[in-house]
Amino acid sequence: MALSNERLIGKMAMLGVLDESYLPEIEKLGWKFCVGKAGSMDSQKVVAAIETAAKSENVIQSRIYRETHSLYHAIMEAFHGVTRGQVQLGTVLRTVGLRFIVVRGNPYEKKEEGDWIAVALYGTIGAPVKGLEHEAVGLGINHI
Amino acid sequence: MALSNERLIGKMAMLGVLDESYLPEIEKLGWKFCVGKAGSMDSQKVVAAIETAAKSENVIQSRIYRETHSLYHAIMEAFHGVTRGQVQLGTVLRTVGLRFIVVRGNPYEKKEEGDWIAVALYGTIGAPVKGLEHEAVGLGINHI
Amino acid sequence: MALSNERLIGKMAMLGVLDESYLPEIEKLGWKFCVGKAGSMDSQKVVAAIETAAKSENVIQSRIYRETHSLYHAIMEAFHGVTRGQVQLGTVLRTVGLRFIVVRGNPYEKKEEGDWIAVALYGTIGAPVKGLEHEAVGLGINHI
Amino acid sequence: MALSNERLIGKMAMLGVLDESYLPEIEKLGWKFCVGKAGSMDSQKVVAAIETAAKSENVIQSRIYRETHSLYHAIMEAFHGVTRGQVQLGTVLRTVGLRFIVVRGNPYEKKEEGDWIAVALYGTIGAPVKGLEHEAVGLGINHI
Amino acid sequence: MALSNERLIGKMAMLGVLDESYLPEIEKLGWKFCVGKAGSMDSQKVVAAIETAAKSENVIQSRIYRETHSLYHAIMEAFHGVTRGQVQLGTVLRTVGLRFIVVRGNPYEKKEEGDWIAVALYGTIGAPVKGLEHEAVGLGINHI
Amino acid sequence: MALSNERLIGKMAMLGVLDESYLPEIEKLGWKFCVGKAGSMDSQKVVAAIETAAKSENVIQSRIYRETHSLYHAIMEAFHGVTRGQVQLGTVLRTVGLRFIVVRGNPYEKKEEGDWIAVALYGTIGAPVKGLEHEAVGLGINHI
Ligand SMILES: [Mg+2]
Ligand SMILES: [Mg+2]
Ligand SMILES: [Mg+2]
Ligand SMILES: [Mg+2]
Ligand SMILES: [Mg+2]
Ligand SMILES: [Mg+2]
Repeated sequence: MALSNERLIGKMAMLGVLDESYLPEIEKLGWKFCVGKAGSMDSQKVVAAIETAAKSENVIQSRIYRETHSLYHAIMEAFHGVTRGQVQLGTVLRTVGLRFIVVRGNPYEKKEEGDWIAVALYGTIGAPVKGLEHEAVGLGINHI
Repeated sequence: MALSNERLIGKMAMLGVLDESYLPEIEKLGWKFCVGKAGSMDSQKVVAAIETAAKSENVIQSRIYRETHSLYHAIMEAFHGVTRGQVQLGTVLRTVGLRFIVVRGNPYEKKEEGDWIAVALYGTIGAPVKGLEHEAVGLGINHI
Repeated sequence: MALSNERLIGKMAMLGVLDESYLPEIEKLGWKFCVGKAGSMDSQKVVAAIETAAKSENVIQSRIYRETHSLYHAIMEAFHGVTRGQVQLGTVLRTVGLRFIVVRGNPYEKKEEGDWIAVALYGTIGAPVKGLEHEAVGLGINHI
Repeated sequence: MALSNERLIGKMAMLGVLDESYLPEIEKLGWKFCVGKAGSMDSQKVVAAIETAAKSENVIQSRIYRETHSLYHAIMEAFHGVTRGQVQLGTVLRTVGLRFIVVRGNPYEKKEEGDWIAVALYGTIGAPVKGLEHEAVGLGINHI
Repeated sequence: MALSNERLIGKMAMLGVLDESYLPEIEKLGWKFCVGKAGSMDSQKVVAAIETAAKSENVIQSRIYRETHSLYHAIMEAFHGVTRGQVQLGTVLRTVGLRFIVVRGNPYEKKEEGDWIAVALYGTIGAPVKGLEHEAVGLGINHI
Repeated sequence: MALSNERLIGKMAMLGVLDESYLPEIEKLGWKFCVGKAGSMDSQKVVAAIETAAKSENVIQSRIYRETHSLYHAIMEAFHGVTRGQVQLGTVLRTVGLRFIVVRGNPYEKKEEGDWIAVALYGTIGAPVKGLEHEAVGLGINHI
């Protein structure tokens, strides 16, 4: 049941969102993925931007709820890393500027493990004033 | 007050913990850092392992409480990314196997911003059974 | 001090909100209760709907703050079951469609335990798109 | 994508755990399920009891991690309803006595939605002294 | 329904725990109260110390569960102020040294509001090493 | 590294916000501080009011981000004490009327500990209806 060292989906997603020159490594595996940017004080807009990208670029199938459900929880888990305590932005007077990646593939040695999804976020979080910010990262992983 | 693009401490810490071949890039900046591993169901042991490494390798000064305080909160923030909801391991029947890095330096353009600390975590989280796990990531950043 | 098996207020509230044919069982005990529906992305509207119903149907006395206070905390506790992590709806891009019941009575064998209040919630939670949702449940219990 | 009114897996799981005379209704649908009891101040023992039951009664396949992963998150979500704030028992000086049910089936109209899992909990929570307790409920739902 | 300016139970509890020369002011109102100390890495021991004091000094009646229930939730709320994020001590490698006070009385102008309980905590929180700590405060208020 | 008994910054901040006749004691130490009021259902407005006061009265330097960062986290920690579970106001249908104080100084015996910041909050929290409220307190402490 072990994770395959060549297909560590979380590591690859994280590397891909930190440094886009890494993206061809993900492509080589034949995995689906999409990247994008989202900046807002409204946390729901960040969620919406990621969901929209993943659906429009066919990383998940929008007509099947279980895929949206899987992605939603992966996004929420990634958000915990970015927000570190309460999953809130504007209501606690902070904003984010994030790059995101959604990767879909099987990171396990066994084929029966099927597809998993990784959502990685990287960017800045801080006061709604340019420069009053530091970096933040998040990773959510779910079976799909 | 902006972050300097060449000294993104969070990105560098994250890259360093994901791929140790990246560590010389951090050294080049003249920044202090330490790396290590911690695996446990006891969350306090992970905290202790990181604190001990950062002190014994002089990334922080152990005789000044404000440095320990800064590191502690950075560790806690990184733990939020790994645990995604409740900062608990064994009490919710899960365990982690993590690599960690603690990096200290000034990521801002202005010298007055002084030192900051970044704690990055990467590894697996899951049931206390080999293979029943997926990857997890955390990043905590604090002024020191 | 034990709970009385015939007057398990939480179980009765939950059964009543899941299946309204059960409501006469609650009536038989002579307990006050009210039922209603609330659907919204605004969590405060759900709280308001429950409070308004409980006051207008005299399950609690609106002129005594301690009764509002007791109900409020019972609603919040029930919301934890529905939201499972952060007590947020629209800010994390989700919406609920809930039935609710508020029941008031003494579930203990001893008369001195006085009145308690149970708030039970049942319905769906999910994306603000019909069908992209699953069920959710919550129960809050407080002394009043 | 809508939920089927005759196959509301959360409602059925909840009714089944509240009143075992309801279990034949779940059987009629041909769904897999298991029931059990768990009482402890150690939250991890409750998690373990549910996981063990679900595996030994073949509600989930223990040799596939994605099934354990799905169940684990459903258990955690159900625990939020029971604990209402922090997913802790003994560390905040309280104990639970719970009945649980794990149900597996497709609650949606479309076959493509595949199997989902519902974990429902019902029982008491309170001080580690008989009688100093009130009822609690939790429901977690996940795609599997 | 307003709070009475002369009987602000939270303020009086807080002042009493910060400075014991203030305690006679609470006595003058004829209110019941008890004070004590609790230091531990085990959060449950702090809860137990407060509950035991309140019962043995008759601030609450131990034979009525609703009073224990009210006190328990007030303690938990006060703990949130001390722990600021996760209600955990030893599991996140920190310890507390706290003074506590439990005050019981009616802070409202209307007699019908009955008794309320205030739990105030003051002390230090930090690493399990003398001196590596800062101050912390908590206040929980509940109807009883 | 111990806290100095004559310079307990948290205790002094708390006493100062509870009773303004105490403020001259803080002045005597030569510490910077500011006081103010903030009442709102919008949690971000409370954060903004405190930040604005601390900057305009020069308790912190607005042109250095590390000072804003330190204050922000101290405010968030103080908010945990006031909100006791989820750092939310209007979204859970409640409002606050708070007095605040921000104090800056070194509470430790050793000069090397440098400046620390304490944010203390005291006031009422409750339904958006006059009188339907009880008191609340929060204290956040950070190195600056
Ligand atoms: Mg997981
Ligand atoms: Mg920060
Ligand atoms: Mg309770
Ligand atoms: Mg879900
Ligand atoms: Mg309250
Ligand atoms: Mg601290």
